[in-house]
Amino acid sequence: MNLRKILWSIPAIIALMGITTAAFAQETSNALPETVIADQQYNKAIHIMAMLLIGFGFLMVFVRKYGRSALTATFLLVSISLPLYLLGKSTGLAGNEGSEIERLLFAEFAAASLLIAAGAVLGRLKMPQYLLLGLLFVPFYMLNEWIVLGGGFGLVPVGAVVDTGGSIVIHAFGAIFGLGVALTMTTKQEFEKVIEADATSDRYSMLGSMVLWVFWPSFCAAIVPPEEVPHTVVNVILALCGSTLITYLTSVSLRKKISIADIANAALAGGVAIGSSCAYASHSMAIIIGMLAGGISTFGFAIIQSRQQKWMRVIDTCGVTNLHGIPGLIGGFAVLPIVKGMNIGGHITGIGITVAVAFISGLLVGKVLPILGRKTEPYEDAEEFLDAEE
Amino acid sequence: MNLRKILWSIPAIIALMGITTAAFAQETSNALPETVIADQQYNKAIHIMAMLLIGFGFLMVFVRKYGRSALTATFLLVSISLPLYLLGKSTGLAGNEGSEIERLLFAEFAAASLLIAAGAVLGRLKMPQYLLLGLLFVPFYMLNEWIVLGGGFGLVPVGAVVDTGGSIVIHAFGAIFGLGVALTMTTKQEFEKVIEADATSDRYSMLGSMVLWVFWPSFCAAIVPPEEVPHTVVNVILALCGSTLITYLTSVSLRKKISIADIANAALAGGVAIGSSCAYASHSMAIIIGMLAGGISTFGFAIIQSRQQKWMRVIDTCGVTNLHGIPGLIGGFAVLPIVKGMNIGGHITGIGITVAVAFISGLLVGKVLPILGRKTEPYEDAEEFLDAEE
Amino acid sequence: MNLRKILWSIPAIIALMGITTAAFAQETSNALPETVIADQQYNKAIHIMAMLLIGFGFLMVFVRKYGRSALTATFLLVSISLPLYLLGKSTGLAGNEGSEIERLLFAEFAAASLLIAAGAVLGRLKMPQYLLLGLLFVPFYMLNEWIVLGGGFGLVPVGAVVDTGGSIVIHAFGAIFGLGVALTMTTKQEFEKVIEADATSDRYSMLGSMVLWVFWPSFCAAIVPPEEVPHTVVNVILALCGSTLITYLTSVSLRKKISIADIANAALAGGVAIGSSCAYASHSMAIIIGMLAGGISTFGFAIIQSRQQKWMRVIDTCGVTNLHGIPGLIGGFAVLPIVKGMNIGGHITGIGITVAVAFISGLLVGKVLPILGRKTEPYEDAEEFLDAEE
Repeated sequence: MNLRKILWSIPAIIALMGITTAAFAQETSNALPETVIADQQYNKAIHIMAMLLIGFGFLMVFVRKYGRSALTATFLLVSISLPLYLLGKSTGLAGNEGSEIERLLFAEFAAASLLIAAGAVLGRLKMPQYLLLGLLFVPFYMLNEWIVLGGGFGLVPVGAVVDTGGSIVIHAFGAIFGLGVALTMTTKQEFEKVIEADATSDRYSMLGSMVLWVFWPSFCAAIVPPEEVPHTVVNVILALCGSTLITYLTSVSLRKKISIADIANAALAGGVAIGSSCAYASHSMAIIIGMLAGGISTFGFAIIQSRQQKWMRVIDTCGVTNLHGIPGLIGGFAVLPIVKGMNIGGHITGIGITVAVAFISGLLVGKVLPILGRKTEPYEDAEEFLDAEE
Repeated sequence: MNLRKILWSIPAIIALMGITTAAFAQETSNALPETVIADQQYNKAIHIMAMLLIGFGFLMVFVRKYGRSALTATFLLVSISLPLYLLGKSTGLAGNEGSEIERLLFAEFAAASLLIAAGAVLGRLKMPQYLLLGLLFVPFYMLNEWIVLGGGFGLVPVGAVVDTGGSIVIHAFGAIFGLGVALTMTTKQEFEKVIEADATSDRYSMLGSMVLWVFWPSFCAAIVPPEEVPHTVVNVILALCGSTLITYLTSVSLRKKISIADIANAALAGGVAIGSSCAYASHSMAIIIGMLAGGISTFGFAIIQSRQQKWMRVIDTCGVTNLHGIPGLIGGFAVLPIVKGMNIGGHITGIGITVAVAFISGLLVGKVLPILGRKTEPYEDAEEFLDAEE
Repeated sequence: MNLRKILWSIPAIIALMGITTAAFAQETSNALPETVIADQQYNKAIHIMAMLLIGFGFLMVFVRKYGRSALTATFLLVSISLPLYLLGKSTGLAGNEGSEIERLLFAEFAAASLLIAAGAVLGRLKMPQYLLLGLLFVPFYMLNEWIVLGGGFGLVPVGAVVDTGGSIVIHAFGAIFGLGVALTMTTKQEFEKVIEADATSDRYSMLGSMVLWVFWPSFCAAIVPPEEVPHTVVNVILALCGSTLITYLTSVSLRKKISIADIANAALAGGVAIGSSCAYASHSMAIIIGMLAGGISTFGFAIIQSRQQKWMRVIDTCGVTNLHGIPGLIGGFAVLPIVKGMNIGGHITGIGITVAVAFISGLLVGKVLPILGRKTEPYEDAEEFLDAEE
């Protein structure tokens, strides 16, 4: 074969490459155009936004005479944290990777974690304090995210922590941070004051809970590659079904009658716990994780919460320890037997760092918030809002 | 032309094939990557989930002192039926075709049909009975689906029944099953007891109704090929507009004043009735079908419902006969003049089988449910729930 | 190089073209299949439908004893305007361009503008009058759309008016039309009658507000090319965050205590104002526009609204002037410094025509509506609805 023939072969090779490329583009989703990926993530970003405002907002409308405050606080917490996170990312200090929609998704995750933290002290802050809480929370959250997921300080190798849907860095972080804040803030007077639930708000809480339930699959699958989304979302739905059923059974068993607060809250524990392993677990594992989380969470609400207040001398208004803290940690450890060949040491280190950063920064923030005042009276939003509610 | 030239032509042919393939990929949607199809269906699956929990749940919050029960029942019915259907499919007995998201969509359809059935006996079941209802309903629903759509027992040829959005196998099946359950369950005492509406729940019912209205196009277009989705969803929206307008006019005409229950319910009859023909009807036909269904449904709520209770000695709490039963059957028959060249005999056989399976299995289940107890007192959810509502 | 060699080069050239085409298909979104574009727009159309029914509907549930009316009116206004707009488009008189889903989106924009207009006279119309309002509004809306965006009468060059998210042709048009209707309709008796807010409806209003907030990015990005969607939606979210924060600060500053009506309404002003420039503004500009709009809107609700009633002798029930009118015009003019090389004369002419058409047609319609009756009594929906509310 002479040189000329070799030269003439080039078109054939190029043509074959062309075909391979075209075929590849059709067969593998990795080759989906960026705009298609962005749109798929955009829809999930909107679903998560519904969870943040309507879901978390209405789930928290159960403190007596505090409905308007809970909703306004939700509005303010979301509105302060999203731009702050995006601003932080734009500095590049904590990494500036990802597309615009991916950065938006990560900002929404930060807002979710903040709303969880705020749930622990709901009913004890004034609006300016929620704003300050948001301002102080986001940097600590980003610090932890950078260390645990982004390889910051070289403490945890990038990719070692498996936490697709954020059981660890979103749910557990937010709950433990909130617990830290509540610990420092709770004074003797506050401790003696019962935060009454508003019975007429049951249906609003259930609305919030259902909105969270419905859109939870998008929360967990937001940054999952397209080809893994179907398995992931079915896992999340199965985990939620499992925790909902077990929550009902546990609530009736432990209390004789159903507590609607158990249903509205613990039914979601399956979504919290499946977060870390949602892309890896089998469907059977998913439903088992959901049931486990639902049972333990309901046990927490029914039995532990009142004792926690005495032991730890802390009031966790929304019970975020039981809904996000414990189930988040369960989810974080559930990954270990499920994902093969993972960096177990790195993963556990990541969980440990998250717990430490969350708790210490929460304690610190709890020291700072009272500079804007401390409530010692029973909480009524009429203090801050015009017109009487009802 | 010698052999060498022929050999040298191969690159050119291959290149042309490559270009053709690439062009084809861009022009026909059939060639959309699986992950893109799955994402389009995933978004519809989430919309349907919003209908199941928030839509059906809040639409049923109108029975006096039964708000928490209706919402908890919705949670339990969805959480029992989705895994059960997916489990049934995984056995392969009733066919295991379709992608993972498609199976999820079909599971959601089963859950919708179950919620419709439960509407007929709402306010007369305790929570364990809703769970038992779900356990018993799903196998019968899958049996009917397998016979009518999957060619089971060779009774109906696959493809003969045109029921894109489920007027027949989802809505009519659920309503007739529920009627069967109500018929066997309704005792003399229950018959004499009026199930009072809770006037303060109007706005919750309207919320449920609006959520159903908004996401109904996704329900009907969930398994429609991408290129037919636009025509389909506009048809569904036009049918809903038609039934909403006629519902208002009929309600005012028949009752002098508007019944908000008519608006919340019958406005949706257009969505029920357009189901079978949504991908085939012209836009004018769609709005006419919607108007017809809205008018007949409102007539049913305003005039027939009270007489139905005397004639059939049955109480249909949510009026599912008028919202899902009659409009579903109207929709099933509306296909006949619309779709050309269809297997009319097979289609009508499919409707007949659906009615028979639903009614008989409903009667059977109605015999079984009372083993967990029978209510003879006016219904208040305080019997099963802690804390007073309001 | 002889002819033969040249001929043999053809395969190579074709192959290269093939590769280029394939690469192009992957890199530019313009080449996305029509069904993919349609699906992306479909999801936004459903989001907008949620805004129309649940968002606008519940935001207006604050007039005392008028909850059922506001929700039923929303149902009727949407159900009359969508088919009417689609019918108008099908005549081809006002242009019949765009895909089926695009026409649906434009129909939803018309419905949104109508709901805004209706907000100005909420609580003073009976149901048949809302229907008549819808019938009369849509043709005027389409006329303005055709002149300002479609080059009708040759008054404004096509493309001169930059109004991606409808600050001008949707929000300002609807608000000014509504003001015109209110001006002609408001009689001395009506003027003296206070339209009381229903304090118990706060949480419903917040629900409506949050639904609008959550889905607003889809409203603004509905007809934006796929590659510009990410930047656009982040802009909209930043503008909403900005207006929400400033609304809180302004409300507290001006009134001493927070008005929940300010929060529910003015928090959305950022979304209104970013509409025109959402695809062009930088993120910093977006948040500034949002803050500006939120501050001015809150100032309007807190200070101007009561004086407006005296000066103009007009009652604007929902304050659409402050939520949609002023912020819409701010948004329309904010485009000028942002978009480079635009047709400034054409843009301003478009704004002027919109204001004129909206105001004059509103005045006319306000003369026509009273032929179906005029209310002089305090408004209670019990006049038109069965059963007492609460």
